[in-house]
Amino acid sequence: MVPIEVMLFLYKKGGKKMKDFVKAITKREEDFAQWYTDVVLKAELASYSSVKGCMVIRPTGYALWEGIQQYIDRHLKATGHENVYMPLLIPEGKLKQEAEHVEGFAPELAWITETGEEKLAERLAIRPTSEVLFAEHFKEIIHSHRDLPKRYNQWANVVRLEKNTRPFLRTTEFLWQEGHTCHETHEEAQEEVMAILDLYTAVCEELLAIPVVKGRKTARERFAGARETYTLETLMYDGKALQIATSHDLGDVFSSAFGIEFTNREGIDTPVYQSSWGITTRTIGALIMVHGDDRGLMLPPRIAPIQVIIVPIAQHKEGVIAAGESILARLQEKGIRTKIDLSDKQPGWKFNESEMKGIPIRIEMGPRDMEAGQVIVVRRDTGEKTAVAMEGLEAYVTELLETIQRNLFEQAKSRNEANTLYTESAEEFTRKIKAGGFAVTPHCGEESCEEAIKTETTATARCMAFTDEEKDLTGKTCPHCGKPAVSLIHFARAY
Amino acid sequence: MVPIEVMLFLYKKGGKKMKDFVKAITKREEDFAQWYTDVVLKAELASYSSVKGCMVIRPTGYALWEGIQQYIDRHLKATGHENVYMPLLIPEGKLKQEAEHVEGFAPELAWITETGEEKLAERLAIRPTSEVLFAEHFKEIIHSHRDLPKRYNQWANVVRLEKNTRPFLRTTEFLWQEGHTCHETHEEAQEEVMAILDLYTAVCEELLAIPVVKGRKTARERFAGARETYTLETLMYDGKALQIATSHDLGDVFSSAFGIEFTNREGIDTPVYQSSWGITTRTIGALIMVHGDDRGLMLPPRIAPIQVIIVPIAQHKEGVIAAGESILARLQEKGIRTKIDLSDKQPGWKFNESEMKGIPIRIEMGPRDMEAGQVIVVRRDTGEKTAVAMEGLEAYVTELLETIQRNLFEQAKSRNEANTLYTESAEEFTRKIKAGGFAVTPHCGEESCEEAIKTETTATARCMAFTDEEKDLTGKTCPHCGKPAVSLIHFARAY
Repeated sequence: MVPIEVMLFLYKKGGKKMKDFVKAITKREEDFAQWYTDVVLKAELASYSSVKGCMVIRPTGYALWEGIQQYIDRHLKATGHENVYMPLLIPEGKLKQEAEHVEGFAPELAWITETGEEKLAERLAIRPTSEVLFAEHFKEIIHSHRDLPKRYNQWANVVRLEKNTRPFLRTTEFLWQEGHTCHETHEEAQEEVMAILDLYTAVCEELLAIPVVKGRKTARERFAGARETYTLETLMYDGKALQIATSHDLGDVFSSAFGIEFTNREGIDTPVYQSSWGITTRTIGALIMVHGDDRGLMLPPRIAPIQVIIVPIAQHKEGVIAAGESILARLQEKGIRTKIDLSDKQPGWKFNESEMKGIPIRIEMGPRDMEAGQVIVVRRDTGEKTAVAMEGLEAYVTELLETIQRNLFEQAKSRNEANTLYTESAEEFTRKIKAGGFAVTPHCGEESCEEAIKTETTATARCMAFTDEEKDLTGKTCPHCGKPAVSLIHFARAY
Repeated sequence: MVPIEVMLFLYKKGGKKMKDFVKAITKREEDFAQWYTDVVLKAELASYSSVKGCMVIRPTGYALWEGIQQYIDRHLKATGHENVYMPLLIPEGKLKQEAEHVEGFAPELAWITETGEEKLAERLAIRPTSEVLFAEHFKEIIHSHRDLPKRYNQWANVVRLEKNTRPFLRTTEFLWQEGHTCHETHEEAQEEVMAILDLYTAVCEELLAIPVVKGRKTARERFAGARETYTLETLMYDGKALQIATSHDLGDVFSSAFGIEFTNREGIDTPVYQSSWGITTRTIGALIMVHGDDRGLMLPPRIAPIQVIIVPIAQHKEGVIAAGESILARLQEKGIRTKIDLSDKQPGWKFNESEMKGIPIRIEMGPRDMEAGQVIVVRRDTGEKTAVAMEGLEAYVTELLETIQRNLFEQAKSRNEANTLYTESAEEFTRKIKAGGFAVTPHCGEESCEEAIKTETTATARCMAFTDEEKDLTGKTCPHCGKPAVSLIHFARAY
């Protein structure tokens, strides 16, 4: 491998050898963590900054986030949610008003203690989440049942100081959407929690082609201050799990602590019931780890900022660029997000780059193809190359994009299924955890047992899957402690 | 005036007297500052939070910001700009790398000195602006002229600790868009600076109906670290000026301080030339102060989240609601942002509320109108009521929205013109400044003279208007110090 300084030197002087530069990514099987970092950097999704644990989200990475934002924002608005914006800072006194909540976040807080001019009388925390600020605001604006429901959302940045950070997956600052709602009844709040979990499922499965396990968190893994936390869990390529989004039933915990009361239809003052829920830039990390391969990123077509890249071959020859631009116009006309690469790099370099960036379809076309009235269509997911007649190209590409989307989803789904083991044996459980993937086990439901499993295997309880809730556990015992089993739990080592 | 506690009590118990509650806003001529606060709160644009100087942006306020965002974001993307995201935090050492820049912002910085677990070795500032972070990133990614231009933008929050805060106009935290670009030549950077100033002018004049004076800042008023700062200035209803957006020519100041160099077409390493520019949530404050009146907010149709509100009269009578909903569907079909108010409040209350919220057009329709095949269309700007035949209503409303948009702009423009005085007399200058509005004066160009004017009158140099640059100043003297005049400057007291 050529040292990066040499490559940069060559690049500055003419860019002839950039092919080698791009190729230099670690193999997925060799060192998955390094492979991930390589893809993040070389596909130009993010880069490091001088602030520990914070990253710069580069144009391609940010475009992915915008795609997710648009999908969610459109849906939230269509279902009566309203966007608002709460302050970045939370006074220490306010934060301490709900004890369990602040305890959960205390170690991760960043504190402002002084300004350019003075020491502050009261410390201000940068929001790690905004339940407290929403609670304060809801208390001010909610008086009557006429004021309910309130379905608020904000697009914001939050800060949680984490020890081990990794771009997208776990960063000191991250971007997210956080929803906060208030309702007259607990049932209505619970419906909201579930409706949002369905929305997040659609984001993952429909948009990002990431299959998820929907379930409930154990008490130990619950959001600090929530009555119940529901989650979407999935497996990365290396078999480690990732929590991809959560939706919390807050019950009347915050409304009681902050006094968010309304006069109900019977004229009685009573606390509201609340939900909160969020999805973050971490989803971009999941996209990379679920679909990427040794050639780089692989983007599902629906989220890909560029769905088709056109690479002219021998572009100096007459008519090649014009033909490429005509294809560009035809595809764009159909709403297909298409670009043409007319830079002075070699085609081989352009191929590598389009693969590194995960563009779902590449169209190669040179003088001979033009003569034959065709182009070469290359799939990023399978590498398959097909000569396709110019006539009807739009329809072919449109269908192929959907095929690739489905294929990526099915591929990930099969892998997750193959990588999920149901077992009633503690030994088999431990072997599975060590090998990677989900181990699903009957469990006694006790926190101490869950804790012991973590100490033993470093696996955590990811969730009690909804699909496991109907299963009959009569006579089953918890293989870890021998007590009667009360639920089935997905365990895994997790990011 | 009924005390607020009583009103809230009545509201909780049935809401009969909310009309009085809404009416309770201070008159504009009586106390403009209080009028402004009343409108912000009663039109539900923002509310206070427990964090000093920070506000909660409520749904209507945030929808205005989203309208501005969409307009700008669409334009920036169409002109080759890319969105990115930089960290919220800046290490102290990095911030100090460009001396003039940090000096300008030092008093307003918020410092993180500790986390939940430890004291930090190096303080972290919350970004007051992101030139430093962009500089660091540009240094990393720019090597060759092939990497230029870079046209980046981010949508973000920033924090500047201000002594006197006021919702939207001056808040500790505010939302903005900040653009940062790098170019091969100074000319190209300057073109960018001007193109963006034109974009901001369109945002103000076309979208928000706010006429602006385009010009250059004096050295004293320049952005910390910029070679030149260009600005859009306008007058509020009370005659005070507001800086509404700025675009900075950074020259090679930051690129020299941070070493952002590229190998140019001649093979020589040389610093890039940069621009930066931003527009903030303060524009919402301008919207309120330029167009609002004693009945509340007044929104230009193009930015109004709701353009038309339908208020059924005697809605319990048969067919009224159905007729209202049919109008709703017809207008929405034409892309007109329309809502219908079917709440159980009295029509009079609904009228007041729609006026307070600044909705450009109200449609009133009751059983008698239905019989006559007409509706009553009420303009928010003039209060004019017109009976309009149901047939052709869409076309009437579409045209009226444009008429209102134009009227609001013309009204503000005439007021600004009437409120701008060109004078060569120091006495007249001071009288004008005290009365409010722009006083345009020949000026010697010396900072000490500018400073003396500020001490004397509390007015600041708002800008040297582009339209004044061609004017011949031969033989003119600065009336404030008697030296030869080198430019014409707009002075005013400002927000």
